[in-house]
Amino acid sequence: MDQPVLFQDRIISKQEVSISPDDRGYVFGDGIYEVFRIYNGKLYETEAHMQRLLRTAQGVMIDLPYAPDMLLQRLQELLQRSNVQEGILYLQITRGIAPRAHLIPDGLKPVLYAYCSPLDRPHEALKRGISAVTAEDIRWHRCDLKTLNLLPNTLARHAAKQRGADEVIMHRDGRVTECSSSNIMIVRDGVLRTHPADQWILHGITRQVVLRLARELAITVVEEPFTVDDLAQADEAFITGTTSEITPVIEIDGRQVGSGKPGEITRRLQDAFEQTIR
Amino acid sequence: MDQPVLFQDRIISKQEVSISPDDRGYVFGDGIYEVFRIYNGKLYETEAHMQRLLRTAQGVMIDLPYAPDMLLQRLQELLQRSNVQEGILYLQITRGIAPRAHLIPDGLKPVLYAYCSPLDRPHEALKRGISAVTAEDIRWHRCDLKTLNLLPNTLARHAAKQRGADEVIMHRDGRVTECSSSNIMIVRDGVLRTHPADQWILHGITRQVVLRLARELAITVVEEPFTVDDLAQADEAFITGTTSEITPVIEIDGRQVGSGKPGEITRRLQDAFEQTIR
Repeated sequence: MDQPVLFQDRIISKQEVSISPDDRGYVFGDGIYEVFRIYNGKLYETEAHMQRLLRTAQGVMIDLPYAPDMLLQRLQELLQRSNVQEGILYLQITRGIAPRAHLIPDGLKPVLYAYCSPLDRPHEALKRGISAVTAEDIRWHRCDLKTLNLLPNTLARHAAKQRGADEVIMHRDGRVTECSSSNIMIVRDGVLRTHPADQWILHGITRQVVLRLARELAITVVEEPFTVDDLAQADEAFITGTTSEITPVIEIDGRQVGSGKPGEITRRLQDAFEQTIR
Repeated sequence: MDQPVLFQDRIISKQEVSISPDDRGYVFGDGIYEVFRIYNGKLYETEAHMQRLLRTAQGVMIDLPYAPDMLLQRLQELLQRSNVQEGILYLQITRGIAPRAHLIPDGLKPVLYAYCSPLDRPHEALKRGISAVTAEDIRWHRCDLKTLNLLPNTLARHAAKQRGADEVIMHRDGRVTECSSSNIMIVRDGVLRTHPADQWILHGITRQVVLRLARELAITVVEEPFTVDDLAQADEAFITGTTSEITPVIEIDGRQVGSGKPGEITRRLQDAFEQTIR
């Protein structure tokens, strides 16, 4: 079999998949998604991802095409068939197929599509860190919903690259929110700061894991918005994400963060994180 | 032939169209679109729609798959083959097909899809008017770009329906922007007011036409943001759009607008508009 994919409730070959041009996912970005991490051939933080999927589904009123338990079973089957040891499982569910109209029709059948893809851990970035630039966050006001409306994220990421940086750190009127596909945390005087999990940021699973680990390590955590100035004065900074894990940010807007090398608290959190994925 | 559609540069049967699940339009809403009006078998305000398409394409850095002249020629061919006398021509262009990644890859080939669809003019609504409710505008901050990231629009429209209304009038902190897929104008003491064509609203083609007609009719036009309070005190209100044309709004948030019937200036503009589509 070519790459196996889950399409609705069946595992088929990717080349058999055909998306309708009337899929609301295609014309409105009317759908939701999740990216699960695969470590050692197993899904990581599965329950948290499933919970977030359900939360987003509810938030945009998309019904899952079948029960969560059965979905998870299918995803596990897909993973087995894909034979991916280290990688991601991507899952998206659109509202369904209908003649184009803003008004949401009744009785649509959602379209589910998922696949596994090998992806190495970002060893180099984890070790050395990355650079970032700041930019105004111009996204909509429900960034907590993990939907397919991702054009602003992709454009922000692209603009960062054009400015020579690896990532973009977004802010609203100077209050730092998050990055294009990861959350951002800073350390100042031993205190870990990150934006609270409200409507302005995605509620990252890795963000949750890191905050739990920080508390276990007796690191003080403050979940309050901080400013671009705070960012500039941080001793340490790092991003958290399903694929980026805990990646140090060593340069922001051309200036080095702290010593210009991954910080000590960042390293401790990376070590603790490493334990969770064994 | 089944419904003819334009797919890339060929007119084919709709059933032959297959969209890739790796189309960035499908996973990111990474694409742009236009809806042209067809009156009497002809495209209306063609040049204005083409200009807006090019402007959006530039704004999100999507290259048209071929030259605008050739595109227009193909759209005209599509129209002829579709044999639609009264309806719409829908056109969308996504950035192209690539393994999912936020970063925009080089050298993508855009995916173009267009079709014509019969649609009657909204005679009843034009005559009697519609109801609307107000809601906070939570969309991103480049509403002037006509992209496929339309989930907030569809959700707002849906919420309005659930509140028993035909449309939603959105505002940012009390400043009225536009509706889910149309612009909004009010009349107070004979003066026509509408939000300026900046980043906060779509630059509607019908909006442009109406402002031109208003000036020809010596109606004073003020392109400045107005508030929800102004809306509540308006003598007349109407929405403008490619499919809604000039539709009176006779009830807002459960209260009647002016006399509760389409206003005099609205009627004059409707009559003048009628002349333009003959």
